[in-house]
Amino acid sequence: MIILQNVFLNDKVCNILIDKNKIVKISDTINVPTDEVIDCTDKAIFPSFCNTHTHASMMFLRGIGEDKNLFDWLNQDIFPREAKLKPEHIYSLSRYALLEMIKTGTTCFTDMYFHVPETIKAVNEMGIRAVIPYPGMDFFDENEAENRIQLATKYLDEPSPNSRIKKALYCHAIYTCSEKLICAFSDLAKKYDTYLQIHVSETQKEVDDCIQKYGCRPVELLYQWGIMGPQTLFAHAVHLNDNELRLVKKTGTVLAHCPTSNLKLGSGQMSLQKYLDTGVKLTLGTDGVASNNSLSMISEMKLAALSAKNKADSVLAGKVEDIFQVATQNGFNGFGINAGTIEEGKLADFILVDMNNQFLLPNNNLKSNMIYAADSSCITDVFCDGKPVMRNKLILRENEIISDFKNVCADLLKQDLPTL
Amino acid sequence: MIILQNVFLNDKVCNILIDKNKIVKISDTINVPTDEVIDCTDKAIFPSFCNTHTHASMMFLRGIGEDKNLFDWLNQDIFPREAKLKPEHIYSLSRYALLEMIKTGTTCFTDMYFHVPETIKAVNEMGIRAVIPYPGMDFFDENEAENRIQLATKYLDEPSPNSRIKKALYCHAIYTCSEKLICAFSDLAKKYDTYLQIHVSETQKEVDDCIQKYGCRPVELLYQWGIMGPQTLFAHAVHLNDNELRLVKKTGTVLAHCPTSNLKLGSGQMSLQKYLDTGVKLTLGTDGVASNNSLSMISEMKLAALSAKNKADSVLAGKVEDIFQVATQNGFNGFGINAGTIEEGKLADFILVDMNNQFLLPNNNLKSNMIYAADSSCITDVFCDGKPVMRNKLILRENEIISDFKNVCADLLKQDLPTL
Repeated sequence: MIILQNVFLNDKVCNILIDKNKIVKISDTINVPTDEVIDCTDKAIFPSFCNTHTHASMMFLRGIGEDKNLFDWLNQDIFPREAKLKPEHIYSLSRYALLEMIKTGTTCFTDMYFHVPETIKAVNEMGIRAVIPYPGMDFFDENEAENRIQLATKYLDEPSPNSRIKKALYCHAIYTCSEKLICAFSDLAKKYDTYLQIHVSETQKEVDDCIQKYGCRPVELLYQWGIMGPQTLFAHAVHLNDNELRLVKKTGTVLAHCPTSNLKLGSGQMSLQKYLDTGVKLTLGTDGVASNNSLSMISEMKLAALSAKNKADSVLAGKVEDIFQVATQNGFNGFGINAGTIEEGKLADFILVDMNNQFLLPNNNLKSNMIYAADSSCITDVFCDGKPVMRNKLILRENEIISDFKNVCADLLKQDLPTL
Repeated sequence: MIILQNVFLNDKVCNILIDKNKIVKISDTINVPTDEVIDCTDKAIFPSFCNTHTHASMMFLRGIGEDKNLFDWLNQDIFPREAKLKPEHIYSLSRYALLEMIKTGTTCFTDMYFHVPETIKAVNEMGIRAVIPYPGMDFFDENEAENRIQLATKYLDEPSPNSRIKKALYCHAIYTCSEKLICAFSDLAKKYDTYLQIHVSETQKEVDDCIQKYGCRPVELLYQWGIMGPQTLFAHAVHLNDNELRLVKKTGTVLAHCPTSNLKLGSGQMSLQKYLDTGVKLTLGTDGVASNNSLSMISEMKLAALSAKNKADSVLAGKVEDIFQVATQNGFNGFGINAGTIEEGKLADFILVDMNNQFLLPNNNLKSNMIYAADSSCITDVFCDGKPVMRNKLILRENEIISDFKNVCADLLKQDLPTL
């Protein structure tokens, strides 16, 4: 058991008792024998963040091919380098991504990439939570669909190494996956009681192409295919009309908003306030560093708020409380994880911030400071599942992880790119 | 003299000699007797930032009255608290703002606030540069205009305490200042060979009101009044049409882009790429923390780039090199300061960043990493005018400045607000 002593929570000082992986008591005084008492004077506690859309292993591509057209960027910079990726690279790259997530206060994420056992190994070691989906992409090739379905079934059949890691499935998008694959993955996800993710309506082009090919909009199509529901997550979901929003709400489908990536790639601005007003389950993701180029949920919250106000042309949009909830509670809830608020009975996933940090003063509205002014320098400690993953700004084996990452990058970023 | 040894500049390692306040030599080897050799192994040098629009002393208002309508926010939250401000507060608040600027790599800024001698005192002490304008606002009262003109003349007559600080003038806006005041301030600025600043076309409402009152758009009006030129700075300048852009270019008028504030207040998105393509002098500012809520130019660069791409609906807009130049060189040039690039003969205003910092790896494009991934934790040292203002992340008297700021905030933020 751990006591957080004199910690600042919701505008007052209190003590918090952590037993195993849960917050069990929040009180003015706690007098029980414990393993450790952590002095939290001048520190505030917040729930940690849940990043609901990223591609962790793309870390080596940060800053590659900036300001290029999508086609040139993919063909000249991204694909040739990704073609060099081996499973062991994914382990090193994932660990490095997790380092960045932890430093910026994230203890749960979901991924979309390949060689997933390596990512699971990294998450298991680093001590945070993740929903790791098996990749689905068949480019409308029936044999490949069959192959993917078999491999995915095998993946789900093997147990997860621990309760922090949930196995799941993803299909890349309706323009890279057949109806057969998407529906089979959806059936599998239901059978194994787990999550299905898919990029949906990221660009207007995707919507236009869908209408041309299928005669309806992407969310309407996926509704017809029966894949929507509370265990389905649509990433991006920028271009949804009223009917699509209604379908999202009706089915309880979860949306992952990625404002930075949407602006950086010129995909458009989601009407965040309208989505919230409709009552859909909105969560927040950074997307990969190739289109962000950071995994900081703090930075993502700021842009989510600003972009919401801009899109709505109103200062009343993207309110502090809403944005914070989208980045924390909504994300955890979206994956059925009992975390995202600091309350008795919740899983002990939280961050401690230094209230004397330059960026967190004055304390007129600490949550607003976290969204609009904070950066990684404010976060001193990060706990996941009751255990520290960062203490006093130190993460276990940080130097080794960084040096390993540099070696992998040196290998992957050499100029002898394969010709595609 | 100081040598920066083994510092990373433009993709290679070199040595840099600083003599007094200037960069005098950049070379593979420098062998001269010096006062100090700074080992810069694994550190990169960049020019420091120039923040061309802010209200430094508003630090105490960070996070106050979030997500309220402008009218309620001003009348319930901002004005009653500003009414309590005394000159000595401004000194403490300015020092705190300068702390935040230094930590985020800014060594030059221009302000818009009152009790300006107190801000000058703070800047002089903290060792950075500033352009400090005397405030002009008359609410169309002729006596007040006369009064302001006399006070401004007196202000400009007294010498600046040192060469880092330039005295200047500002008029608040065309909707708070008379033609008489604006034109007199412009004449004064010319007479004293200094700078005039004014908020221009921040909102569409300002444009519409101007057309109704004066029969033309704001920039057209100010052109007719003869106040435009290379020593005039328009803050915000969001809503400029083609003719206004042409006038800005023709006169060499400088624009201060404030993307965060413009989004946060729902003022709109500037077409950054179009402005750059037109060839106007574009610089970058954070605005005050009441509408940002940070003074970080790193954060501002990221939003400037993202917003440019979004507005242009193109990944080719808001390129890394352009955004970095807007935040550095263009700002210094706008105020006739020979800084903003790392070259022989330039003033020694620069930052050192830790190339092993999590957020700056891998080094595919270090400038892109600075814009899109960095935060204050990356910056280890800040120099202004050849002298360190932050060394190894330490700023002189930081604890005293923070504790003084907290006392001032306690005083100003008490609930006994005067009734307005």
